[in-house]
Amino acid sequence: MTISDIGGEFELIRRLARRDVADPRLVRGVGDDCAVLKNSPGTLTLATTDMMVEGTHFSLAWQSPFQIGRKLVEANVSDIVCKGGTPRFAFLSICLTKQTQYKWVEEFYSGLYAAAERHGVLLVGGDTTRGERLVCNLALLGEVEAGQFRPRSGAKPGDLIGVTGTLGGSAAGLELLKQKKTGHLRDYLEPSCRSAGEGRAICRYAHATIDVSDGLAGEVSHVARESGLGAELDCEKIPLSLTTIESARAVKRDPVDFALYGGEDFQILFTLAPDDVPPLLNDLDDFTVIGRMREATEGVFLLRDGERIPLGRGHDHFA
Amino acid sequence: MTISDIGGEFELIRRLARRDVADPRLVRGVGDDCAVLKNSPGTLTLATTDMMVEGTHFSLAWQSPFQIGRKLVEANVSDIVCKGGTPRFAFLSICLTKQTQYKWVEEFYSGLYAAAERHGVLLVGGDTTRGERLVCNLALLGEVEAGQFRPRSGAKPGDLIGVTGTLGGSAAGLELLKQKKTGHLRDYLEPSCRSAGEGRAICRYAHATIDVSDGLAGEVSHVARESGLGAELDCEKIPLSLTTIESARAVKRDPVDFALYGGEDFQILFTLAPDDVPPLLNDLDDFTVIGRMREATEGVFLLRDGERIPLGRGHDHFA
Repeated sequence: MTISDIGGEFELIRRLARRDVADPRLVRGVGDDCAVLKNSPGTLTLATTDMMVEGTHFSLAWQSPFQIGRKLVEANVSDIVCKGGTPRFAFLSICLTKQTQYKWVEEFYSGLYAAAERHGVLLVGGDTTRGERLVCNLALLGEVEAGQFRPRSGAKPGDLIGVTGTLGGSAAGLELLKQKKTGHLRDYLEPSCRSAGEGRAICRYAHATIDVSDGLAGEVSHVARESGLGAELDCEKIPLSLTTIESARAVKRDPVDFALYGGEDFQILFTLAPDDVPPLLNDLDDFTVIGRMREATEGVFLLRDGERIPLGRGHDHFA
Repeated sequence: MTISDIGGEFELIRRLARRDVADPRLVRGVGDDCAVLKNSPGTLTLATTDMMVEGTHFSLAWQSPFQIGRKLVEANVSDIVCKGGTPRFAFLSICLTKQTQYKWVEEFYSGLYAAAERHGVLLVGGDTTRGERLVCNLALLGEVEAGQFRPRSGAKPGDLIGVTGTLGGSAAGLELLKQKKTGHLRDYLEPSCRSAGEGRAICRYAHATIDVSDGLAGEVSHVARESGLGAELDCEKIPLSLTTIESARAVKRDPVDFALYGGEDFQILFTLAPDDVPPLLNDLDDFTVIGRMREATEGVFLLRDGERIPLGRGHDHFA
C-alpha cells in the first residue's frame, strides 16, 4: 500500500501523528498552522536542524526505516545535549516518493518515536511532501538554563580536551557495508547519542563543547579556531572500541582514521581545566582525556609515535 | 563553479551565512551546534516548517533560484503571521547536487534574505547536504503574545468567514506555465504572504484563523471540522483578481476552481462575529467576507447560482 492507497497525506498524518500529547508546555501541537509552545522561565531556547538524504546519509538496502527514523532523532538530540540542553519539541519534514509504502513510513515513525521517547522529545509538527528521492529533516527545540550554554569558542589556554564514549565505530561499520563484509554494524546503523543528564554534567565543568558528528579532527579544529587557540591530540588516548579495531582490520584500514575522519559518533567533545577532571569523573565516568589546547601558532596536530601530524578537517559533503 | 570548486560546504557556509547578526534575543547564531535564543517575556513560541522539493514545488526551468529562496520564506512566514505571531528566527536545511553551481546557491540565499528582511526574520542556523535532487526546508520560530493565538478550532456558530487579498492567482500562473502560455505569472513565481501587523489586526477580532496555502475549499473544511461546525461559501464573493480571471480564460478553466482547489495563495482565512467586521475594517481594508459558519449537519458547501455544491478537500501531494 502506497500513501495514495491509504488516502493521501492528510490520512497519513491522521494515522501517524500523535495528537494526544499531554505536556503543560505544549499549548498546541500537530493539527494547526504552527505549534505553540510555552517557554520555561529562566531558560534559553536551543534550536537545531539536521537533514538526511537517501543515497547520501542512508541506503534503503542497508538501513531499515526504523533505523533511519531513529538516527534522525539521535543526530539532532546530540546537538542539543552537547550544549547542556534538554531536548523538547521536534518538527519532521519528510519527502516520500510515489512508490513509498505505507508500512515503510509507519516503521520510520516507530524508530523516530522510540528515540524521541528515550530523550523525552515530543513530535509536534512538520510537513509531508513528495519527490523522487526520500529526504527527511528534523528541526529540534530544546532549552538550557541561562548561563549553562557552552560555546565552541569557550576553550581556554591550558584546558584539557575530553571526549565521551568511543569513536570511529560508525565509520567502521559503514566501511564494512561498503566492502560487503560482515561484522559490528550497530554503531553505524543504530548510533545512540549521549543523554541530556550527561551533557549537563559535562557543561557544569566544560569551557567549550561540540558534538562529534563529522570526525574528531574536524571537531577539534572547530573548537581551536573558534577559541583562537591550537590543539594537540594524543593518538594513544583516542578511545576506540575493540569492535572498531576488529572492523578496521577486516577492511584493511587504520582504526584511528575512522575516529579522526569518520562521522556520526554523536559523542561530546569538551575542554576543561585540569583541576576539573576529578570532579567531573564523580558525575560521569565514560570519558577520556585525549589532549590539550595549545597556542594558536602551534596549530592543531596529532602526536603519534613522537611525531606531530597536522590534522585536516572533518567530513565535507562537497569537498 | 560548483560547491566543490569553491572548497566545500564549510566554505559555502562561510560565504553565505551572516554571522554578524545583531539582535538582543540572539545569544548564539550560525557557527555552533545549535542556536541559542532568548524568549521575550509574556510570549509563547510559535514554530513551523515547510519543505520545497525540486520537481514537486519548483522547477529549475520555471523559477529562478532567487524566487525559490523567496517563496520558501513566504510559505513559512505565512504560517506564523496567520496566527497573530511575529516571525523571528529561521533555520535552513538545503540539499544540493554535485552539479549545483555556487552562483545558483548565492542567488537562492539572496531571495531568502530579501524575504527574510521584509519580515524581520533572521537566518540563524541550518544544515547543508548533498543529494541527487534539490530540496530545501525552512524551520521558522516566531512569538505571539499569550492569549493572542487563534486556533483553527475556534470558529463559533454564527461567525462570518473572511479572507484577505485575492485567491487563485498562484494556481492560475502555474497552469499558464504548464500550458506553455504567457500571462501573469507573478502570483505563482513571487507570492507574498501577509505581514505580521495584518495578522495581528485580524487576531484582535478573529475566533479562528488558517493560512490559505492548499486551496480555499480545504482550508474552510479544516476550520469547520476542527471547530465542530459546517460552513457556507458564497461563490460570488470569492475574491479573484482580474489577472486570474484573464489567465483562467487563456487556459480554459474556471477561475473559481483555482481559488477553491489551487494553493500557495498565502492569504489569511478567518472567522469572526458579524459585529466585529466594521472595527476590523478600520484596521485592515484588504479583506472580503465570503461566507458564514453553519451547523455541522449542513456540511461544508459552496452556494453557486442558488445551488449547494459540497466542497472537497484541498491539495494533497499523494491523493
